[in-house]
Amino acid sequence: MKAEIIAVGTELLLGQIVNTNAQFLSQGLAGLGIDVYFQTVVGDNEARLRQAIDIARSRADLLLFTGGLGPTQDDLTKDALAAYLGRGLVMHEPSMAKIEKLFASRGIHMVESNRRQALMIEGADPLDNETGLAVGNALTADGTHYVLLPGPPREMRPMFEGPAADWLQEITGDMKPLYSRILRFAGIGESSLEAALLPLIDGQSDPTIAPYAKEGEVALRISTKAADKAEAFARIDATVTQIEAVAGSYLYAREDVPIEQEVITLLRNTATTVATAESCSGGLLAELLTNVVGSSGAYAGGFVTYTNGMKHALLGIPMAQLEGPGAPGAISESTAALMAERTREIANTDYGAAITGVAGPAESEGKPVGLVYVAVAARGKPTQTFELQLNGNRSTIRIRAVKQALYRLWRTMGNV
Amino acid sequence: MKAEIIAVGTELLLGQIVNTNAQFLSQGLAGLGIDVYFQTVVGDNEARLRQAIDIARSRADLLLFTGGLGPTQDDLTKDALAAYLGRGLVMHEPSMAKIEKLFASRGIHMVESNRRQALMIEGADPLDNETGLAVGNALTADGTHYVLLPGPPREMRPMFEGPAADWLQEITGDMKPLYSRILRFAGIGESSLEAALLPLIDGQSDPTIAPYAKEGEVALRISTKAADKAEAFARIDATVTQIEAVAGSYLYAREDVPIEQEVITLLRNTATTVATAESCSGGLLAELLTNVVGSSGAYAGGFVTYTNGMKHALLGIPMAQLEGPGAPGAISESTAALMAERTREIANTDYGAAITGVAGPAESEGKPVGLVYVAVAARGKPTQTFELQLNGNRSTIRIRAVKQALYRLWRTMGNV
Repeated sequence: MKAEIIAVGTELLLGQIVNTNAQFLSQGLAGLGIDVYFQTVVGDNEARLRQAIDIARSRADLLLFTGGLGPTQDDLTKDALAAYLGRGLVMHEPSMAKIEKLFASRGIHMVESNRRQALMIEGADPLDNETGLAVGNALTADGTHYVLLPGPPREMRPMFEGPAADWLQEITGDMKPLYSRILRFAGIGESSLEAALLPLIDGQSDPTIAPYAKEGEVALRISTKAADKAEAFARIDATVTQIEAVAGSYLYAREDVPIEQEVITLLRNTATTVATAESCSGGLLAELLTNVVGSSGAYAGGFVTYTNGMKHALLGIPMAQLEGPGAPGAISESTAALMAERTREIANTDYGAAITGVAGPAESEGKPVGLVYVAVAARGKPTQTFELQLNGNRSTIRIRAVKQALYRLWRTMGNV
Repeated sequence: MKAEIIAVGTELLLGQIVNTNAQFLSQGLAGLGIDVYFQTVVGDNEARLRQAIDIARSRADLLLFTGGLGPTQDDLTKDALAAYLGRGLVMHEPSMAKIEKLFASRGIHMVESNRRQALMIEGADPLDNETGLAVGNALTADGTHYVLLPGPPREMRPMFEGPAADWLQEITGDMKPLYSRILRFAGIGESSLEAALLPLIDGQSDPTIAPYAKEGEVALRISTKAADKAEAFARIDATVTQIEAVAGSYLYAREDVPIEQEVITLLRNTATTVATAESCSGGLLAELLTNVVGSSGAYAGGFVTYTNGMKHALLGIPMAQLEGPGAPGAISESTAALMAERTREIANTDYGAAITGVAGPAESEGKPVGLVYVAVAARGKPTQTFELQLNGNRSTIRIRAVKQALYRLWRTMGNV
């Protein structure tokens, strides 16, 4: 079955809000084994909405609407679809009773327009609204299925997951649901990963392998339709094994989590801790680690040593290491190593991670933009350092440097 | 002029990402006086993309595409539109040279598919990609305008705001141009600002006053259409004066710059410096300050003291202040003040800024989620502290706390 999601609302066309409903419903429909081929946004305008319905009917079997079920004159999704189908609107008495009861209990006068929220297209099934007043509608006409959901996410989500999903499962009773597994990679770029996997991707159509870029990371979604979970994951996991053979050393999670979360989980599971020292990344490594819920047990803290003076004052790195003729300089493998080691010692943690480099826009110490050194110090082990040549603008270089540092830390912790 | 935004990408139809590009472009087009009537999302499928182009052409004068300009086989927006228009694809040599140079500088082999990013539809104008490799395209054919932008927001946004906006202003040249001024506010929430300005907003239609929320800040766009700049800004600046009378103490910039940039500019202009100490914000304050180009002359560095042990070890805050019966605790006005003062002294800077609080999801020290203390220490002046009750989730509380700290620092530096 092919579906089209139609969001109705001028506020979307003005850019006042983001269409998060489309994402939620796309995921939900995929879970029901229904393919979404188009998403459309149209304003609160009956002629243009009818035009959108006409186009969607020609290319989809299921039209899912969000928005336009409220009490105001602008809320015209039901009116427009009823007119399009040549049907009338009827009052759904249980919804009307609920609305009247609510207003009575709050002791306020019910404005007439609130009755509109209890209207149904003739012949439609009602979809209960647990968290709001506007009743949803679901109906089939001339072989096309229509589901009308409210716009506010807190009303739309429970209605979709409850009564709408039940209704959809009934009409698609014979279809197989889609199962998928997300694989997350760090330390490798999207095009390199895709090039490595190209023979695999080209050589098969089921399960499908879909790459997509995250900030400074890459993810793959491995999907298949199957009668049940066991059958699906047998196929999916066989594909995962093939992917692991090619790019296993970059694969850090078999679920959709960022690498900083995986690092915090590993630290907690092994009762170990980390501290950080950052120059060009300016606190972004600390920020990502502490944004993980539960990081306080694993992340002790860190230093942002943006100037040479601070590298000396806070970390005790000799000025002769940082400046002067023949000095390695702040942007060097040996300075990165010293930063990681001194940080680990001062914070008395199991690991220390450090980043120093040139985020741009201008070169520094005569070294080019994108040159970054990452170091990982571990208690009782030799410190490891990595020279990176990153591309992108200032922000991109910073995030890529931080994700590389997290990947190197993850590997140092005994993985791969 | 009527526009339709067409986002190309199967990842949107699978719900893997949210179409934030549509919101950004809708706002941007409104700013150029162009009405958006439809937003469409279509997958990486040439037949369906051509169908979407055909429909959009019938109902819009301008088609703005995002996505599908990258190097992979799935990236087919240029191919599909060229085929639709019966045109060929030609190599844009400056973009090709840029791609080759980048790969050479990184010393890695260029995969052949990367050449695709330098392709142009015959007769199109190139749109420079400041932050990535895929060149944008803009062209007019049979009275319809087409603009092709990359999918990643960090590439799409600067391309739209720079070369694409210039191109659009040229083709809409016969219309009275829209002039606007952005006012940026910190230290006040969107709804409070809007409530304060409501009489002003309701009382006038030209210039228009459009509030929009930035991360942890609020901005107003004051716009008017006029024959020339002088006429426009005479009207706009009269409105700005009225706004200043109501909310002037929160207005930190008359252009679209984040407060961290304004703080760095002020520090540089006064040849003063700042250092930071962070607990619940975990490095986000340092990260925002160092993301500003030119921050190294003004920002010395800082501490992320996530645990009490680190507050003691790095900043010398007595354990008796942090823990034990009757201690104020880590989340207190006096700890915030000590953090700011000790940081300023250790780093030997003119200012020290500190943040400690509860970002959630759970309470801490029996103190509620959202309780945050901000302190600003200044050389030779009494330290100022502020108690905040912030709402939102963990990420929102962190960003709001950091923006408040920046606002308080900005005020301490002699403003307002």
